[in-house]
Amino acid sequence: MPDTARRIVLASRPVGEPKPSDFRLEQVAVPTLGAGEVLLRTLWLSLDPYMRGRMSDAPSYAAPVGIGEVMEGGTVNEVAASNNDKFAKGDIVLGRAGWQTHAISNGSGLRKLDPKLAPVSTALGVLGMPGMTAYAGFLEIGQPKAGETVVVSAASGAVGSVVGQIATIKGARAVGIAGGPDKCRYVKDELGFDDCVDHRAPDFPDKLKAACPKGIDVYFENVGGPVAEAVVPLLNFFARIPVCGLIAQYSATELPPGPNRVPQLFRSVLTKRLTIRGFIVTDFAAKHADFLRDVSAWIKEGRVKYREDIAEGIENAPEAFMGLLKGKNFGKQLVRLGT
Amino acid sequence: MPDTARRIVLASRPVGEPKPSDFRLEQVAVPTLGAGEVLLRTLWLSLDPYMRGRMSDAPSYAAPVGIGEVMEGGTVNEVAASNNDKFAKGDIVLGRAGWQTHAISNGSGLRKLDPKLAPVSTALGVLGMPGMTAYAGFLEIGQPKAGETVVVSAASGAVGSVVGQIATIKGARAVGIAGGPDKCRYVKDELGFDDCVDHRAPDFPDKLKAACPKGIDVYFENVGGPVAEAVVPLLNFFARIPVCGLIAQYSATELPPGPNRVPQLFRSVLTKRLTIRGFIVTDFAAKHADFLRDVSAWIKEGRVKYREDIAEGIENAPEAFMGLLKGKNFGKQLVRLGT
Repeated sequence: MPDTARRIVLASRPVGEPKPSDFRLEQVAVPTLGAGEVLLRTLWLSLDPYMRGRMSDAPSYAAPVGIGEVMEGGTVNEVAASNNDKFAKGDIVLGRAGWQTHAISNGSGLRKLDPKLAPVSTALGVLGMPGMTAYAGFLEIGQPKAGETVVVSAASGAVGSVVGQIATIKGARAVGIAGGPDKCRYVKDELGFDDCVDHRAPDFPDKLKAACPKGIDVYFENVGGPVAEAVVPLLNFFARIPVCGLIAQYSATELPPGPNRVPQLFRSVLTKRLTIRGFIVTDFAAKHADFLRDVSAWIKEGRVKYREDIAEGIENAPEAFMGLLKGKNFGKQLVRLGT
Repeated sequence: MPDTARRIVLASRPVGEPKPSDFRLEQVAVPTLGAGEVLLRTLWLSLDPYMRGRMSDAPSYAAPVGIGEVMEGGTVNEVAASNNDKFAKGDIVLGRAGWQTHAISNGSGLRKLDPKLAPVSTALGVLGMPGMTAYAGFLEIGQPKAGETVVVSAASGAVGSVVGQIATIKGARAVGIAGGPDKCRYVKDELGFDDCVDHRAPDFPDKLKAACPKGIDVYFENVGGPVAEAVVPLLNFFARIPVCGLIAQYSATELPPGPNRVPQLFRSVLTKRLTIRGFIVTDFAAKHADFLRDVSAWIKEGRVKYREDIAEGIENAPEAFMGLLKGKNFGKQLVRLGT
């Protein structure tokens, strides 16, 4: 075991898009183990858009990361040493060790993973928080029905890909929105969406309209910004909009005016009796067992597929994260820190 | 019985605020009765903000009134003559005869009223569509809980007054928003709201904040426009916004920019996990019996009060309606056409 650990701390609060100098790579001694504690060696770090929120001290649903503190994040870890009866050296656990190669834990919040059941990295993606976000938010708020049209933004991503595949399983028409022809091809050909529209295309609103001849019954809001504005005019009566993420807006210092302002949106809410509801994954904690049962089965049956985009080494985490916010990743963004 | 009837027809589609020339008063022969029909003499005509929508041919939840056609509206009528076994001369019925002194009906959609139970005009207000809108939308979507803060716009109006009084009955803090000191005084002193804020006050947003020290859990959206924009920053986590009307916007040809644009609103929806849901009263038809039972009881117990603003004569309906859209009425706006 090396005696130095490496970690990424928040060097400064980004204004707008995060830049490399907002992060700092540090080398520190591997922490020593106290009574009841375990030493965790990080195998996989998950990068997720919500982390942009943690870098800011604007009011949100969670406290921000402090300046000089290790960036937060979900991880898969190996127990490298243990003073805790519940964990043995060599156990693989799901935790929140953050952007660092080693961490100390008292064991609370750690969940053991069975590497025989599924690749352990899936605990950060399709069988983890992003998959659960898709499953619970889409089914509980979206209430999809057979024959309806479901539109999903960021359709090749960790959350959107699962939403669209569940839409198909439920008999709905799944229309993805993604950036660029490669992602659109993947969404249609690999994930089996009925259609996918490139939001970078100049005639995107028209293309979206053509892909939704019966209008839109569920819009899973995963992106925000101009994509949402193309969706609103196509919404059907009683459409549902689960709002789970706003990647396009997370870095905005001043949000764009855009043609759809609140009075216009409320007019649509009224005349079409829309439901718009924000959520975060922990709101639906009670659905976690259902989620694991259903999505594990769908993966085994080949009805839910997933894709990982893997950066190598903690030093590359900031760049991968900055790329994620710009939609450069292709599939669930992970960083491999060890094997 | 006179042999001439009078009616108001839509003369032209208003651009912006309706003006007198958008309406035309006509004198016509009282229609003659066919087999199975009843002749209705109108006692009370209800004026409601939704009627502005019917004057426009923009897409909405209902078809517009045609040019030259009688303006639509809920009415209380006396059966003046009957060829229908189900109705006798002298019966008082709730119907939709529109803005006219006489109408023919085949009896479908008419509901007999018992004048001994309550003044028959209440069937157009607190015990009618506005009351039902308040009751069902507030309880079903608003889901008020004891100790929460409920904010109601147009608080002295037919819908808002009932929402706030039900909030109080449910143990919530009721804060009204109304235009001018007289209405605010009425809302607090007569209707028993905990507080009422004048939206015409220059420091309205600050006053609203002071009236809601624990934030806002339910905002019953009845007005739209700038009032809503002062509310959004005060919303608590998991707040609910039933959207029932947008009086301030109905006549807008170009909606104001305002500080809260859709991206900002969606950010609040996400971080605060808001629910915004539009509805119209017929969405909750199944609750009608509950409504009549509860609100009748509350009126008898003195826990729900109401106020009527009465214009006299069909010829004054357009002016009363134009005033209603500007908030000039004080209480449920009615027109008395006969006694």
